[in-house]
Amino acid sequence: MSRPDVDPLLPSWRPGATRDALVAFLDASLDRPVGERVAAFDNDGTLWSEQPFVQLAFLEDAVQAAVAADPTLAGRAEYAALLEGDRAAMGELGLTRIALALAELFEGETPEQFTEKARTFMAGAHHPSLDRPLRATTYQPMLELLDELRRRDFTVFIVSGGGTEFVRAVSDDLYGVAPEAVVGTLIAYDVTRRADGAPELRRTARVLGEANEGPAKIANMHSQLGRRPILGVGNSGGDRDLLEWACAGGEPSLALLVDHDDAEREFAYRSVAQTFAEDEPITEVAERLGWTVVSMARDWAQVFPT
Amino acid sequence: MSRPDVDPLLPSWRPGATRDALVAFLDASLDRPVGERVAAFDNDGTLWSEQPFVQLAFLEDAVQAAVAADPTLAGRAEYAALLEGDRAAMGELGLTRIALALAELFEGETPEQFTEKARTFMAGAHHPSLDRPLRATTYQPMLELLDELRRRDFTVFIVSGGGTEFVRAVSDDLYGVAPEAVVGTLIAYDVTRRADGAPELRRTARVLGEANEGPAKIANMHSQLGRRPILGVGNSGGDRDLLEWACAGGEPSLALLVDHDDAEREFAYRSVAQTFAEDEPITEVAERLGWTVVSMARDWAQVFPT
Repeated sequence: MSRPDVDPLLPSWRPGATRDALVAFLDASLDRPVGERVAAFDNDGTLWSEQPFVQLAFLEDAVQAAVAADPTLAGRAEYAALLEGDRAAMGELGLTRIALALAELFEGETPEQFTEKARTFMAGAHHPSLDRPLRATTYQPMLELLDELRRRDFTVFIVSGGGTEFVRAVSDDLYGVAPEAVVGTLIAYDVTRRADGAPELRRTARVLGEANEGPAKIANMHSQLGRRPILGVGNSGGDRDLLEWACAGGEPSLALLVDHDDAEREFAYRSVAQTFAEDEPITEVAERLGWTVVSMARDWAQVFPT
Repeated sequence: MSRPDVDPLLPSWRPGATRDALVAFLDASLDRPVGERVAAFDNDGTLWSEQPFVQLAFLEDAVQAAVAADPTLAGRAEYAALLEGDRAAMGELGLTRIALALAELFEGETPEQFTEKARTFMAGAHHPSLDRPLRATTYQPMLELLDELRRRDFTVFIVSGGGTEFVRAVSDDLYGVAPEAVVGTLIAYDVTRRADGAPELRRTARVLGEANEGPAKIANMHSQLGRRPILGVGNSGGDRDLLEWACAGGEPSLALLVDHDDAEREFAYRSVAQTFAEDEPITEVAERLGWTVVSMARDWAQVFPT
């Protein structure tokens, strides 16, 4: 049944300046040729909740399984810090070293094996505080935006700091985004041969190129996809360059920044961007550069899917 | 007007065993879920003629322009060998060193500048012996196959040894393949800042990862696209691993190898694959592995578009 008194466009976005700016961009974007209608979304904290990082929960499960199989692994500094949630130790070890140690847990697996593990985890994992499955911590207003963009013949890409394979394992199911439209941090593959002589791919514990954060998001997106966004959507300092990139290629364009200011329905925290010599809250960067800031508390009538 | 007495499927493919195998595969592929209907095509010698390599003709033009602007460059060994067509000197220098010297010609350019150059070249370049524009040296039977695959909801990727940016500049126009569906040899980008502070991409003269030939075609395709082909189409030793990969992931699958045996309408030559200790003609590899070989002379009623 039609409801002529309710605007069917972006129903979870409350009326106001943010929604007006978004709708104005959606209308104006139709002046661009279809090939230029490209949107780039960050994932963690932008398309779904990032407290805790979903992929970190997956990796904790994998460490626990590895330790159960070989208890001596519990003594390894990177795994111990993670299992104990020891942020001081994690800071001292550094994210790169921890990430590479975690990559070792899947070394030698085929892409299919890893994808199966990621999907099995996502099918069963529950959020520790939000009283919903992890797969249901996507943001309803963003799902609506993805649909509106596709209705306008946009090509939608996910440009995530997370592991490419992990995001690809769930992106079609959660967001309708195909594997090839996901750009993340890549683990290198070795091409080996099976006993019958056929080639196969095996995961290594090496990162291919640069981790997909900051300026690398621009370079990696261009290398992998060859397309420039006119809409950039993010929430953190690691998305800053991508959002600037989206706005530097002519008009119309839009940079949309999610401000996590909703302690009641989600979480209240604020990312910082390293600009010049000091850390600048990302919302101040947004104001300085004229981005559109989404206040989760004010602009979203509904946060999660029902 | 319909022509019920003419089969509209793949009209440039002559009746026979090759066409039968191809049509049987197209029919059987419908049993696969849509997400698994993935085709990977090599470009040079598979989708268009490779004598001469189109990209090499483009690069020769660029060297000539650079030498006209700075005559001292004519003394540089890599450029001299190319301009003189000195195959002995080229062999001695090695393809990698020549490719990197050529990449220097475009160092510092933005992606848009390079794309514009590639498109301008393709708009005006003529084949030296085939009496047609270079952009019309695509193979009509392959264009028909691309359309048939898309009609069956296949995702079509180009996995080329050529430079990714060059192929992307023309792939939509020639083949209806979007930039993000092209995997080739990648030049790295630097992210810099314009005078107004906005980020921009500038080409370097460094290759990112491995040149996209042989086993690297499998690893690069998976890293960039996250999908496995069930149809692999190629023509040379550099495509061998990709075609084996297409056939190693379950049935139905098909490896299609173009044999350039048509001196009258195109060219007659045969690529070799380095297998074990010796060079094996790629058509013998095909026979050993049960691939379907396309004889250009026998199987194609028409080679080029009219």
